[in-house]
Amino acid sequence: MSRHRIEDEFALIARVFAPLARDNPGAFGLTDDAAILDVAAGYRLVATVDAMVAGVHFRDRDPASLVARKLLRVNLSDLAAMGARPLGYLLSVMLPPETESGWIEAFADGLAEDQEIFGVALLGGDTVAAPGPMAFSLTALGEVKVGAELRRAGARVGDAVYVSGTIGDGALGLAALEGRLDNLSKAHRRALAGRYQVPEPRLALGAALAGLAHAAIDVSDGLVADLGHIAESSGVGAIIDARRLPLSEAASAALAADPDLRGAVLAGGDDYELLFTAAAGAAAAVSSLALSLDLPLTEIGRIRSEKGVRAQDESGNEIPLDSSGFSHF
Amino acid sequence: MSRHRIEDEFALIARVFAPLARDNPGAFGLTDDAAILDVAAGYRLVATVDAMVAGVHFRDRDPASLVARKLLRVNLSDLAAMGARPLGYLLSVMLPPETESGWIEAFADGLAEDQEIFGVALLGGDTVAAPGPMAFSLTALGEVKVGAELRRAGARVGDAVYVSGTIGDGALGLAALEGRLDNLSKAHRRALAGRYQVPEPRLALGAALAGLAHAAIDVSDGLVADLGHIAESSGVGAIIDARRLPLSEAASAALAADPDLRGAVLAGGDDYELLFTAAAGAAAAVSSLALSLDLPLTEIGRIRSEKGVRAQDESGNEIPLDSSGFSHF
Repeated sequence: MSRHRIEDEFALIARVFAPLARDNPGAFGLTDDAAILDVAAGYRLVATVDAMVAGVHFRDRDPASLVARKLLRVNLSDLAAMGARPLGYLLSVMLPPETESGWIEAFADGLAEDQEIFGVALLGGDTVAAPGPMAFSLTALGEVKVGAELRRAGARVGDAVYVSGTIGDGALGLAALEGRLDNLSKAHRRALAGRYQVPEPRLALGAALAGLAHAAIDVSDGLVADLGHIAESSGVGAIIDARRLPLSEAASAALAADPDLRGAVLAGGDDYELLFTAAAGAAAAVSSLALSLDLPLTEIGRIRSEKGVRAQDESGNEIPLDSSGFSHF
Repeated sequence: MSRHRIEDEFALIARVFAPLARDNPGAFGLTDDAAILDVAAGYRLVATVDAMVAGVHFRDRDPASLVARKLLRVNLSDLAAMGARPLGYLLSVMLPPETESGWIEAFADGLAEDQEIFGVALLGGDTVAAPGPMAFSLTALGEVKVGAELRRAGARVGDAVYVSGTIGDGALGLAALEGRLDNLSKAHRRALAGRYQVPEPRLALGAALAGLAHAAIDVSDGLVADLGHIAESSGVGAIIDARRLPLSEAASAALAADPDLRGAVLAGGDDYELLFTAAAGAAAAVSSLALSLDLPLTEIGRIRSEKGVRAQDESGNEIPLDSSGFSHF
């Protein structure tokens, strides 16, 4: 660690962050140069990093605990998409000098809450006082059994395309938070906002997909864009049947009020559901997995040889898509 | 990965950062959700994170390639301090939207240069366009043989305290860059600045200290502060013999011109040398190691039971120290 830091760095780490490392003996209470941990025999290490910056990935007025939980969860979602079990995480925290300690404590509380839920602990961290927006970078480490790795590449022509849970809630949740869905009931707006702010990494599903899924990814950039990533990595294309998209009650209400929101469902991101392909003959196995996990797994399309991702509406007409997946309504 | 990014994120990653992942097949060219790598049987994973922010850890006008190399090297230094061999790294890059692509390319070139030297490659990354100063967070992963881990805790009363290379160059290098050592020759100022900008992680030394060192740390916060970390973790104290501090020719010249700079040598950081303790009887083994590595290993003090870190000058008088280790001249 280098020395140009807020002078009370050691005190801050000890008071706020060190307790987060308590359940990880190899983190040495964040008082050594690095953390040590073991990857089980027959397992491989899985590592991913995602950053979040105020004003870009969250709003300045968002509750600190929710910012922390989303930061951890989007990284755990990447582990889920590889079929991995989380081992722990490392965290860089860049805070403007005027940050109130209450904010940092609430941030740590959010992490503590989710550590409990997901059975992970902090392995290492770095805290920097710097001008500019708050920024965080989190590296999540996990392990996956040799041979059980899920990849984006591997989708085969004829595969069915599945998605877990419901789609579109993330993008609609952001819209609700920004006051763009004020015609919806308060309960629906809250449900959508919750999905945007505290996504659910599908770790149990990811771990169960070994031997079943040919390709997998988590829906972060948007359904179309992420299916595009699978298709491109696999050298194939895909077609989505828009009628089949699994919608939450709140998203259904939003689309009933404004059918133009369908674009947000197809292209919006931040759902953190798993999108995967499996052989057409595996439908029964997928249904049985959905039942055992108590998680909807919906077939929404097919892999085909024609490159690119397309979507059809109820009449079989093609829905125009912005190929970037970044388009918003 | 989430979607609120500079629109050409994929293009930027592909063009500038993806080549850095080429030598690491488990990085999948940065096109999957996470990287997969193997920790050798009988080895443990070592993980560390360090962030660098413009205006705090480097100056806006510093060459991009040197910023990148220091970022990687300070993290490798933490691995060295644990006795670990580097496996790879993950990187978050937060850049203001107005950053010129030439800067980013030079940054990547610096990483490429050091990847070659240290035999590591990029495993995963995240690029965010955000207002505020440039900021980087790097997570380095390494492996260490079970039982060969170096720790801060473990120093024993009577141990000799050793430091590798020369001390004080980092702090004096910063002073030289800031124009505070203009009475020194240009060659000396350049030598010091180089040590500050491109530190040398002592990986071979760290790996060779297994079974020899009782405790180890890298000198990043400053000699006194870092010896304090060892002492505190180990429940002991230490005394430094200031006459024995190994100085480079440039640092000797600086101290000859201004003896008050001794404080910078004792308290200044950024040297990234290894500071370790070993049994008094291990002196011959340490000498032989220094010879085989062609790296000076100098005994600079002793571990004792009286808590705290103290330093004595040539007359045996105590040198007043700022216990924080953050004091500069």
